Amino acid sequence: MDLKKRDRFVHVVGQLCCPGSFGPVVSLHARSAAMPSRDDLTAIMELIRAVIFPGYYMEPDINAANISFYTGAKLDKVLSALKEQIKRGLCFECVNRGNKDCTGCDSIAEEKAYSFIEALPEIRRMLSLDVEAAFEGDPAAVDVGETIFCYPGVRMMTSYRVAHALYNIGVPLIPRIITEMAHSETGIDIHPRARIGERFFMDHGTGIVIGGTCVIGNNVKVYQGVTLGAKSFHKDEEGNLVKGVPRHPIVEDDVVIYSNATILGRVTIGKGAVIGGNTWIIEDVPAGSRILNR
Amino acid sequence: MDLKKRDRFVHVVGQLCCPGSFGPVVSLHARSAAMPSRDDLTAIMELIRAVIFPGYYMEPDINAANISFYTGAKLDKVLSALKEQIKRGLCFECVNRGNKDCTGCDSIAEEKAYSFIEALPEIRRMLSLDVEAAFEGDPAAVDVGETIFCYPGVRMMTSYRVAHALYNIGVPLIPRIITEMAHSETGIDIHPRARIGERFFMDHGTGIVIGGTCVIGNNVKVYQGVTLGAKSFHKDEEGNLVKGVPRHPIVEDDVVIYSNATILGRVTIGKGAVIGGNTWIIEDVPAGSRILNR
Amino acid sequence: MDLKKRDRFVHVVGQLCCPGSFGPVVSLHARSAAMPSRDDLTAIMELIRAVIFPGYYMEPDINAANISFYTGAKLDKVLSALKEQIKRGLCFECVNRGNKDCTGCDSIAEEKAYSFIEALPEIRRMLSLDVEAAFEGDPAAVDVGETIFCYPGVRMMTSYRVAHALYNIGVPLIPRIITEMAHSETGIDIHPRARIGERFFMDHGTGIVIGGTCVIGNNVKVYQGVTLGAKSFHKDEEGNLVKGVPRHPIVEDDVVIYSNATILGRVTIGKGAVIGGNTWIIEDVPAGSRILNR
Amino acid sequence: MDLKKRDRFVHVVGQLCCPGSFGPVVSLHARSAAMPSRDDLTAIMELIRAVIFPGYYMEPDINAANISFYTGAKLDKVLSALKEQIKRGLCFECVNRGNKDCTGCDSIAEEKAYSFIEALPEIRRMLSLDVEAAFEGDPAAVDVGETIFCYPGVRMMTSYRVAHALYNIGVPLIPRIITEMAHSETGIDIHPRARIGERFFMDHGTGIVIGGTCVIGNNVKVYQGVTLGAKSFHKDEEGNLVKGVPRHPIVEDDVVIYSNATILGRVTIGKGAVIGGNTWIIEDVPAGSRILNR
Amino acid sequence: MDLKKRDRFVHVVGQLCCPGSFGPVVSLHARSAAMPSRDDLTAIMELIRAVIFPGYYMEPDINAANISFYTGAKLDKVLSALKEQIKRGLCFECVNRGNKDCTGCDSIAEEKAYSFIEALPEIRRMLSLDVEAAFEGDPAAVDVGETIFCYPGVRMMTSYRVAHALYNIGVPLIPRIITEMAHSETGIDIHPRARIGERFFMDHGTGIVIGGTCVIGNNVKVYQGVTLGAKSFHKDEEGNLVKGVPRHPIVEDDVVIYSNATILGRVTIGKGAVIGGNTWIIEDVPAGSRILNR
Amino acid sequence: MDLKKRDRFVHVVGQLCCPGSFGPVVSLHARSAAMPSRDDLTAIMELIRAVIFPGYYMEPDINAANISFYTGAKLDKVLSALKEQIKRGLCFECVNRGNKDCTGCDSIAEEKAYSFIEALPEIRRMLSLDVEAAFEGDPAAVDVGETIFCYPGVRMMTSYRVAHALYNIGVPLIPRIITEMAHSETGIDIHPRARIGERFFMDHGTGIVIGGTCVIGNNVKVYQGVTLGAKSFHKDEEGNLVKGVPRHPIVEDDVVIYSNATILGRVTIGKGAVIGGNTWIIEDVPAGSRILNR
Repeated sequence: MDLKKRDRFVHVVGQLCCPGSFGPVVSLHARSAAMPSRDDLTAIMELIRAVIFPGYYMEPDINAANISFYTGAKLDKVLSALKEQIKRGLCFECVNRGNKDCTGCDSIAEEKAYSFIEALPEIRRMLSLDVEAAFEGDPAAVDVGETIFCYPGVRMMTSYRVAHALYNIGVPLIPRIITEMAHSETGIDIHPRARIGERFFMDHGTGIVIGGTCVIGNNVKVYQGVTLGAKSFHKDEEGNLVKGVPRHPIVEDDVVIYSNATILGRVTIGKGAVIGGNTWIIEDVPAGSRILNR
Repeated sequence: MDLKKRDRFVHVVGQLCCPGSFGPVVSLHARSAAMPSRDDLTAIMELIRAVIFPGYYMEPDINAANISFYTGAKLDKVLSALKEQIKRGLCFECVNRGNKDCTGCDSIAEEKAYSFIEALPEIRRMLSLDVEAAFEGDPAAVDVGETIFCYPGVRMMTSYRVAHALYNIGVPLIPRIITEMAHSETGIDIHPRARIGERFFMDHGTGIVIGGTCVIGNNVKVYQGVTLGAKSFHKDEEGNLVKGVPRHPIVEDDVVIYSNATILGRVTIGKGAVIGGNTWIIEDVPAGSRILNR
Repeated sequence: MDLKKRDRFVHVVGQLCCPGSFGPVVSLHARSAAMPSRDDLTAIMELIRAVIFPGYYMEPDINAANISFYTGAKLDKVLSALKEQIKRGLCFECVNRGNKDCTGCDSIAEEKAYSFIEALPEIRRMLSLDVEAAFEGDPAAVDVGETIFCYPGVRMMTSYRVAHALYNIGVPLIPRIITEMAHSETGIDIHPRARIGERFFMDHGTGIVIGGTCVIGNNVKVYQGVTLGAKSFHKDEEGNLVKGVPRHPIVEDDVVIYSNATILGRVTIGKGAVIGGNTWIIEDVPAGSRILNR
Repeated sequence: MDLKKRDRFVHVVGQLCCPGSFGPVVSLHARSAAMPSRDDLTAIMELIRAVIFPGYYMEPDINAANISFYTGAKLDKVLSALKEQIKRGLCFECVNRGNKDCTGCDSIAEEKAYSFIEALPEIRRMLSLDVEAAFEGDPAAVDVGETIFCYPGVRMMTSYRVAHALYNIGVPLIPRIITEMAHSETGIDIHPRARIGERFFMDHGTGIVIGGTCVIGNNVKVYQGVTLGAKSFHKDEEGNLVKGVPRHPIVEDDVVIYSNATILGRVTIGKGAVIGGNTWIIEDVPAGSRILNR
Repeated sequence: MDLKKRDRFVHVVGQLCCPGSFGPVVSLHARSAAMPSRDDLTAIMELIRAVIFPGYYMEPDINAANISFYTGAKLDKVLSALKEQIKRGLCFECVNRGNKDCTGCDSIAEEKAYSFIEALPEIRRMLSLDVEAAFEGDPAAVDVGETIFCYPGVRMMTSYRVAHALYNIGVPLIPRIITEMAHSETGIDIHPRARIGERFFMDHGTGIVIGGTCVIGNNVKVYQGVTLGAKSFHKDEEGNLVKGVPRHPIVEDDVVIYSNATILGRVTIGKGAVIGGNTWIIEDVPAGSRILNR
Repeated sequence: MDLKKRDRFVHVVGQLCCPGSFGPVVSLHARSAAMPSRDDLTAIMELIRAVIFPGYYMEPDINAANISFYTGAKLDKVLSALKEQIKRGLCFECVNRGNKDCTGCDSIAEEKAYSFIEALPEIRRMLSLDVEAAFEGDPAAVDVGETIFCYPGVRMMTSYRVAHALYNIGVPLIPRIITEMAHSETGIDIHPRARIGERFFMDHGTGIVIGGTCVIGNNVKVYQGVTLGAKSFHKDEEGNLVKGVPRHPIVEDDVVIYSNATILGRVTIGKGAVIGGNTWIIEDVPAGSRILNR
């Protein structure tokens, strides 16, 4: 390395470390606690999948004699690993709010981790129904096990139902990371805040978007490329977006939405309606109606 | 950990291990053999890619003197690793059919693994033509090597052609896992049962769905977001889906289908037809015709 | 293994190693240098992300005292690892052009690696503005850090802006690999040659395609499933595609393009235009106009 | 690679694959089953250490509520992983004896694995006493935990007591691999067949050798470099070694043997004797006597 | 797995989890904090080796322009990783002393970690002299770099000098773990409490034992198998060992001790003495004398 | 981190990067090429072991049909990986000799790597005889395979014979690293320059030292703790050690040397002599004689 190159190198390091270079959004000082770890959250999701679907994701030869040992050991690992991630999520929020002392985050995180594992039996009940819906809803499904082990829709629902439970418990950041990890894997983007009923089935999945204020009933089917999105964004008097206002669709029970349909705004798709592919819906759809493209 | 927390923990373990909690679809007893391994299948696909495209995925310095050593060693690993995965797929099916004794699975799996490697020269021939089509079909392609090494469409076709060969040999579950792994990587969802001719090119790819009973001719081009799906599902007298009926399109030679077009049902897109972007097709399209959006 | 199986195995190895079997596109002789490594490029992107967003992707407890040590050490690793990958890209091109002697590639690669790190301060400035746009543009965004750490659009822009800088420096192959790795993660396909201005925001992202000759202004928003593609391909007199001709849209400042819109050809979307979801645009759109689906 | 080098390479491969080149001892045909795996045995030993010393080698926060989950899960892994290794040991022996059909090895291995885990409570009892002896015998030991966690003598005894239990159950090859792995770590070479009583303490350890037919009583201390070896080897009429004859010392209770002492042959070191450092003993030593170097 | 085996398994788990089974030394309740991590300490030692010998263990191409970046980044990692290990060592001691509240351990650990890195320049000075002594003392040494990179004696001295510095700072347990890790690698057992002067050289090394109260001068050479040990142990009135009393040799400057010599007790080996191989020394040796075996 | 700590940290980094602090032996400028990699050499030794003892260290199911594929592929990896390590060894020597331009090292390294693999058939022949000697020489050996797979003496001889071949070819540094890696594993320290005949057997092994100018005949047995070392070192007129002079024993055919014997200087142990344990030999021993300790 000749001298001129050394100078160029040192100059760039200087530029990148100059406090002024971080701009308004990438503050150097913003983060003193460790950020949540994607690798650890991936491992936590694998443990949760094993606990929920032991016949598919646990060690082979699980039986009535040893299942409680494996379930207990894995759940204990979920508890301690998730507590750490929840705490990082809490500290992240603390720091952003300018709260320098997050001493309390540790014990709050532990309590939230306990609350989460207590939600697991209900999460399993819901996922079992989602699996059933997938098997019954797809003529290509050979076998219920295939839907559990291979279907991206079931994989996404596992992540969503876990993330939604964490969201309900008041855990910041972590639910969004979990759904985005699954978004990357499946191409399905569900906001963890959305509410989704029993027996939800997404086929193929790529490109589905479900916004954060959606409310979806029971027994709903959605195909690839469907958007349940916002139509317009409320702004306050200063022109800033008003955050958190309901702005995504309500989808009632037994609705089917075919591929690439786009439904925008706080509209209601009535019970039993069928929305055809490639349609564009920005108004309420009465129960039982059938909307076709052209 | 105070006592109350211990009690909460033990209670949750008990709930999750209670046989009644597994529901109708997530039977504890269903699985006594190991499930197929995604990690092992990923490694197998890498070995196969190296054998098929040695200039790109094998060690550097491959030459006429050493290529047979590398090809032989990698193929021998494919043989034994794939035999194990095929066996797991067979046992999975056995168990689901209530067949408790799957002694025969071992030797059946070995024979199927041999049949598969014998299909590799033909798989390479087909993939070479797919690569050629990709290079000729994309004005942005600088070089044929770029399409082999970078294009998600070529990556997906490698997985699909391998999975389809396994499907033809009668291997259960594994073909679907292979295409779903590639679906996750590329956003392209091709059912391993679909039949696809020579020189097939998919550009960009994200969101493409090709159903299990599709029949696609030679020299066909498909762009991102295209669905070749089913229009309606046959149900039997008891209201259950009839599985396995042809319900996806037939696409004849030389057809081009532009982005986000949706073609549903057992319709035939005639030789040389051009289907415009964002179109919605649920009827036959005559050979040579040109269908535009609006 | 009985003798017949051995014979079958040796026969397949022979077929796969037969020079004639490689076809016109998969030449055995094409590659004598190592191909670029996806694993190494992934590690390089992680180092770059840490250098650009130290508060999010560097070790915790980064402060004014130690940031220059970490930045310097990571940047030095980027320099040597990227030099190696650039060199492989250069050698790949050399070989393809029949240039057997690529002695010069080593020092050219080093110079290009230096030029790249000198572009990093500007890349950070641009990304800071993209992050700001993401936070301001999404009512669901709780916090600017969430958009940096979780949003696929920001992740894709990091890869694109790095790849685009490498493209501008004249590095072959590597930029495309980087954008395709991010395409696989995010479902967003941006060609590294495309030119994109400040404050670019993509929400949800899955299915977005931005072609290589696109020119996009400042302050543009694009939603999931949008295609900025080519309408037709120029062919020369022999029927071969003419490569490199401008064939993708120009999008001026302050444009918003809603989900699944398709804009094809060298058309211009005028400043401040709003393109509705599911629209199909193949002609110029005047500044300030509002195009709706039907 | 020029042609001559290719020729040299192919020639060497040919030489190394020529059946005649394997010589009398390295038969190609000898091994058709997989050999035992050092990595797997290392993992098994770690699991066993965790089960035996949970406070030191298990996850932190082990308590009365979760210890049975962790113990059960780890023990179940020991069971299945050890069964596989035992089976490989059995098959290895089968093949060596010319027994081509080792169908029975699988169920024999399972039974032996069960017998082994049933020996664990007794192994823990013995090791607890060894730990106690280490703490009481070394003036440098600050704390009983330090001896468990740091002392090579305790580490070696854990491996020896596990290997000896496997030897007693009739497992071939595996016990020797386990003691040799610990030999490599600690420099202490104890044959798994040797019999060693309660409260055995080795300080420093490097260079200690304890032969296969040794019998050692309770409460014995041995320092670095001590050999308890054979003096001469019985040969049969054809001049071959007679294997398995008792040829190593008997060491009675309460004996202390200082560093680098060498005791050879089937001699008896009587109860309470003290053997000084660097001594050379080839005859019986009466109880209570004190043997010094010169 | 038949029922009887399940019963056997559950029975063993029960035995191993029964509080009574832990015995007096292996208390379940003893440990609630995490134990120190050998893997992390191994990584810390690698970082330290790189900082001390940058030309050998740092990345290649270290130069005056980038060395401070690498040194700073590695040292910062040492600081945080070592702080965590020191804290675990402190908590381990706290728990053993029945001190349930170890709130203070965190800040004490941080201060000790700072003190340790401040000792590094002196540690490097001492090791440079040890390296010089090794090169000058071994006729087989081709080159000073060979002694740094290959010699077990230099490797051991690096670990010892680091461990001794930590011992001097009052860090419990960790120094012993570090020397035992090096003992396992090199066969050399030096207690971290021992005091060793400048230019210390051990050739071959296997079997060397240097006790905790040894005091060794400058310019001393020691060969394989040498013991500097204790002759007898003081017991108190109740028959327990008195710990911490000086009981190992004092070795003055310029002494050479040849292989397998044993020197026991608080004797003094006078300046410049030469102790022959295989000797047995339990009394003072006058300065300048030459002791031979027989 | 408060300011004072930051200052302390930056101060230490400054001290450690100060050129003056590197001392005479740890020059910063000494190394601009990468050092040899222990991990890569470990992998190379594993490949070599597999090629030499295919029945033990290659994949299972090696047979006449596939052995040449595996042998060829592994040998090709040895060739390229070893070439790189040899080159690093050559560059290391170049730099030490002040030779700044080591352009030639690359092609010299390739030639030496070829010469090495051509030595492998002879290395295998020698190792087969060593294995035979181990089985015949140890009454505890159950089986020839056990000696190949478990015995540290055989493991050491594999490393030694490989290192010695590299030494003979004129490769610097690498042979020493290989024997030191094996020294760490086995406690046996053989200098790669030593010459050792056929059928060499070391039992137990820990503590054996064999110096660089030793010459050992055929059919020799050596036990743990034996030193074949130097008695005195020649110094030149300036008091510096004269390097490379023969100063270690010559051991003729059929000699047996029992545990902890020490033989020093250029003495000759005559054919068939038996050297007892713990003996101290500094003079020639006539052929056929029997030397006992006392």
